[in-house]
Amino acid sequence: MRFFSDNAAPVHPRVMAALAEANRLDTAYDGDARSRALDGRLSDLFGTDVMAIWVPTGTAANCLALAALCPPHGGVVCHRDAHIQNDEGGAPEFYTHGAKLFLADGEGAKLTPDTIRAVVDAIADDVHRVQPHAISITNATEYGRVYTPDEVAAIGALAQERALGLHMDGARFANAMATLGCTPAEVTWQAGVDALSFGFVKNGAMSAEALVFFKPELAGATLYRRKRAGLLFSKGRYLAAQVLAMLDDDLWLANARAANARATALAAAAGARLVHPVEANEVFLRATPDEAAALRAKGFDFYDWAAGEIRLVTAWDSPAEHVALLAQAIGQL
Amino acid sequence: MRFFSDNAAPVHPRVMAALAEANRLDTAYDGDARSRALDGRLSDLFGTDVMAIWVPTGTAANCLALAALCPPHGGVVCHRDAHIQNDEGGAPEFYTHGAKLFLADGEGAKLTPDTIRAVVDAIADDVHRVQPHAISITNATEYGRVYTPDEVAAIGALAQERALGLHMDGARFANAMATLGCTPAEVTWQAGVDALSFGFVKNGAMSAEALVFFKPELAGATLYRRKRAGLLFSKGRYLAAQVLAMLDDDLWLANARAANARATALAAAAGARLVHPVEANEVFLRATPDEAAALRAKGFDFYDWAAGEIRLVTAWDSPAEHVALLAQAIGQL
Amino acid sequence: MRFFSDNAAPVHPRVMAALAEANRLDTAYDGDARSRALDGRLSDLFGTDVMAIWVPTGTAANCLALAALCPPHGGVVCHRDAHIQNDEGGAPEFYTHGAKLFLADGEGAKLTPDTIRAVVDAIADDVHRVQPHAISITNATEYGRVYTPDEVAAIGALAQERALGLHMDGARFANAMATLGCTPAEVTWQAGVDALSFGFVKNGAMSAEALVFFKPELAGATLYRRKRAGLLFSKGRYLAAQVLAMLDDDLWLANARAANARATALAAAAGARLVHPVEANEVFLRATPDEAAALRAKGFDFYDWAAGEIRLVTAWDSPAEHVALLAQAIGQL
Amino acid sequence: MRFFSDNAAPVHPRVMAALAEANRLDTAYDGDARSRALDGRLSDLFGTDVMAIWVPTGTAANCLALAALCPPHGGVVCHRDAHIQNDEGGAPEFYTHGAKLFLADGEGAKLTPDTIRAVVDAIADDVHRVQPHAISITNATEYGRVYTPDEVAAIGALAQERALGLHMDGARFANAMATLGCTPAEVTWQAGVDALSFGFVKNGAMSAEALVFFKPELAGATLYRRKRAGLLFSKGRYLAAQVLAMLDDDLWLANARAANARATALAAAAGARLVHPVEANEVFLRATPDEAAALRAKGFDFYDWAAGEIRLVTAWDSPAEHVALLAQAIGQL
Repeated sequence: MRFFSDNAAPVHPRVMAALAEANRLDTAYDGDARSRALDGRLSDLFGTDVMAIWVPTGTAANCLALAALCPPHGGVVCHRDAHIQNDEGGAPEFYTHGAKLFLADGEGAKLTPDTIRAVVDAIADDVHRVQPHAISITNATEYGRVYTPDEVAAIGALAQERALGLHMDGARFANAMATLGCTPAEVTWQAGVDALSFGFVKNGAMSAEALVFFKPELAGATLYRRKRAGLLFSKGRYLAAQVLAMLDDDLWLANARAANARATALAAAAGARLVHPVEANEVFLRATPDEAAALRAKGFDFYDWAAGEIRLVTAWDSPAEHVALLAQAIGQL
Repeated sequence: MRFFSDNAAPVHPRVMAALAEANRLDTAYDGDARSRALDGRLSDLFGTDVMAIWVPTGTAANCLALAALCPPHGGVVCHRDAHIQNDEGGAPEFYTHGAKLFLADGEGAKLTPDTIRAVVDAIADDVHRVQPHAISITNATEYGRVYTPDEVAAIGALAQERALGLHMDGARFANAMATLGCTPAEVTWQAGVDALSFGFVKNGAMSAEALVFFKPELAGATLYRRKRAGLLFSKGRYLAAQVLAMLDDDLWLANARAANARATALAAAAGARLVHPVEANEVFLRATPDEAAALRAKGFDFYDWAAGEIRLVTAWDSPAEHVALLAQAIGQL
Repeated sequence: MRFFSDNAAPVHPRVMAALAEANRLDTAYDGDARSRALDGRLSDLFGTDVMAIWVPTGTAANCLALAALCPPHGGVVCHRDAHIQNDEGGAPEFYTHGAKLFLADGEGAKLTPDTIRAVVDAIADDVHRVQPHAISITNATEYGRVYTPDEVAAIGALAQERALGLHMDGARFANAMATLGCTPAEVTWQAGVDALSFGFVKNGAMSAEALVFFKPELAGATLYRRKRAGLLFSKGRYLAAQVLAMLDDDLWLANARAANARATALAAAAGARLVHPVEANEVFLRATPDEAAALRAKGFDFYDWAAGEIRLVTAWDSPAEHVALLAQAIGQL
Repeated sequence: MRFFSDNAAPVHPRVMAALAEANRLDTAYDGDARSRALDGRLSDLFGTDVMAIWVPTGTAANCLALAALCPPHGGVVCHRDAHIQNDEGGAPEFYTHGAKLFLADGEGAKLTPDTIRAVVDAIADDVHRVQPHAISITNATEYGRVYTPDEVAAIGALAQERALGLHMDGARFANAMATLGCTPAEVTWQAGVDALSFGFVKNGAMSAEALVFFKPELAGATLYRRKRAGLLFSKGRYLAAQVLAMLDDDLWLANARAANARATALAAAAGARLVHPVEANEVFLRATPDEAAALRAKGFDFYDWAAGEIRLVTAWDSPAEHVALLAQAIGQL
């Protein structure tokens, strides 16, 4: 019974069906009908004109966004527990040609205007210091916490004041949206976000994320960078098809709601053991090594986080009975 | 009736079936059973211990190979019509951090020891000149020409003599093999090739190529580079599944034979119009603009190459009737 | 008797005196009075508002200019014999993060609108091809040929038409100017040049060139790039002092005239042996290996160029008697 | 009266004399007699075979060393207050093509095996995390603290155990040596240091540092990288001459002793105000804004450090009377 991560979950049947349906000849690269539909579909979703492209991984989406917002000699403020800092093998530095990540603090891996200012204000404005050019936040965060539109807007206002770009890593954007209940616009461009990595892989797709630029003029060289990174698939229609299938009838929201509900059920069982409020599909709880072993002995698979902490992640397809069993087992610890 | 390129052809049903079969939980990234099988399966095919990984595009395969064979301050000798020079948007320079491509000549986009020497011998051995570190050849070439094992071995001997790495861009390796009839070993590692981009996408896969290192010690940092380039899919099993499906029962060879046979039929019709001998699945023929227009008027889609030249490419699925019609139309020009 | 190159000539006494005079405390980096004077002094010389900074080498000047004019995913058109292609160890690729040099032809290492168009027009305007973003010309060229203002203006017009930046490598700009007799403005910004590497080291300085931006807004990140490349000397005043000393009383022109006059004397002796018209301080002449050996036996030091060609370079300090002896020896071949 | 930094002090007369003496023709780049002497002279000084080259700035020396010790996809552990992190404008990332700096703690900007381990042990050994490849320490540190041979050796042992390279930023290596009184060997290669940036500019040179590799095989591509960075001066003899002049009769030590003695005098006056023990030529002391203003009103120039702290730096030429006046003024606060 797997609660290790949502990143290896099976592909949703409707996505598989969309791949099958796309399996006929169309123009190569992103000239096919499906790829050309992305701008429109995502503009509709976000209620503004966006430029949207498929990319195969969240790391690629994040790093193309950062390269659009930060020059090689600049820097990006992110949380010290951010995926771009810890889990992408230096891809941000590769794509930006060596920009520096400035690490800020914040509870639950959430930045705040104050923690950003603490970093930025310490950087003297001269050529000896790498200058910040952008901020990157993650929604939902690495700890399953969700930024509200107001929280994002506060950061967006700071970004604008300091002339910094604002990127949102939305590997679990769907999970955040399922919780927030607001419009996608409210927590992104209306709050000052310039570019969003809109994740689908963790939420039921196979190998497609959308990189969404809310200021198309910022996208600038991104199409060239995507090609230059070896990311321009000749059969791009199979990526576009995944994105479209996820958007159709809000499958992305339905899947995220399912995953979140499972996590909420686990959270209820965890009670005082919770390390972070559960706002998406990740549950961090305190467990001694013995307790962790006891859970594993019952067939549950998960990740040891910090000392005395374990992480449980639910996915769109987490079986209700597995969740019930795990909730029970947690209760029995 | 599409003869534009093989790069947008549909995915073979057996590959689609393999994707469906892979659609259950397994370990993320390349820890799944399928990904772990690649080394063995390709070692069997090549008759030697190889290190093999999936990557999603041919550009990514080529450029990871070049990065393994050439430092940022070095250079790679390739044909001036090579894909890495003309069609990858500067990806070789991105992945190698700025290595230089040295452009050599050769009929049919084939390098020879003489044309390589002409380039390499002109480079003084001092720090003012970028020094060559590798050679990259393409088999089959951009003009559908095939290197024989002896031809590769002659280049391999030169590479060894000059301490240069040798990469083979095998975006259409299957088409070359279908023509050569030799073992995969004979035209690769036994002839001095260090790394092969083994292409499947043009030959019936959806989004998976294999990067094969014949000297695993050369692979060195490649796993880190793949991650750093945003190419390490969390659901890697769907890429491995494609490669394995293509290898099963030599589907890769069967598909390539089909495509080559179609090209041979077109070549027979083209006769004296042929620009290059047809050795794989590409047919270049002389046609005036009026003749090209006449073919298009009959419903054939293809690429205008140099002035007075058109390119016809067949794929694994090119319908025999389309080929027959096109052959007839060519005969009527 | 050295005619090998002008790049190792001694430093002019007035430059040495300027170093001595600068040898007192002033602000670090480029905050000192001399560094701050560069913009003004070079704006005066060029008759327009320029942004000018010291850099220690011509390679650094060239490559900072290219980085300002061309993004990592772009390319720069230059002559196939250009210094940036052949003699800078890949520095253009390093500074631009992997931009590609497109090699064009032209007699005497001079580009023309036609040879540039031949390269640029062959590049399809899509993401698969590296797109040209700039042109780099060298005045005087590697073969000692000089671009006239009209010739530069023709290239400048093409650059503007195609939205390409225009860089002039002026490692021997002084030698060109000494021949042209026009104003510095006429052959640079009035002809469409965006950035000039204004060389002094070959012409009597020790270790300082000026990088001049005629559109200061283009300079953008150059101050950051200079620092990031480890080129921002803490004792920058000693570099600024060199530049200022070279500008004082037009020492740069006097030195170049001296060197050019020596070359002209050699050219007269060479007569029909000349490979290129002598327009600056370089003399290329046909000489058999035996003839070259004969000259060396008489104590002359020079560079073997192509087969059957030698290169003689005069410097600001080439002794008249050495030149007379060499002219005599050439006459006796 | 300047106590702002040692980085803008005048050039020592013996260095100026050496430049004058070098002002005659010699071979270009590093082929001249002086440049060729560096390996030998520094091998003598360090009592082992070293490979030593001139570079113009400390940033260049540091970053060439890091590029030799760390691949683009790797990381370097340094103190969070290290010059390479805070004062080089991202040059380490530029030269290494995007390696990451891992920031460790330590009193007085000194790393210890424990603080290094705290960083390194937190990095999981997989492709998702940038892996550490080197450690960089600064001797004397940014706070004027000195590593003893034993302290370096403890770090060197850890480096060896973890297969990490070890770089020493010796911008003020002379000041450290003047305090330590040990042999240069003891605090460098005998303690496990692989590469040393041996600084001269802050200590009386104009524009030359030595980059010293204690394992010449590590130097590998450094000569190519130096050229590629635009750092290979054509008149390299003037840089070599500076290094040699600094080494002659241990001028480097004499200058450092002079600077250190001045700092010691200031430290005595500062007494309980000292923030860090004074072990080199930097004095950090607590001073309120009013006190700082009072010192400035008396004509002293210095740097405001953290809140309530000022930094006083002495140089090889700090006039004794200025020091006496400043000591007196500090005493009167």
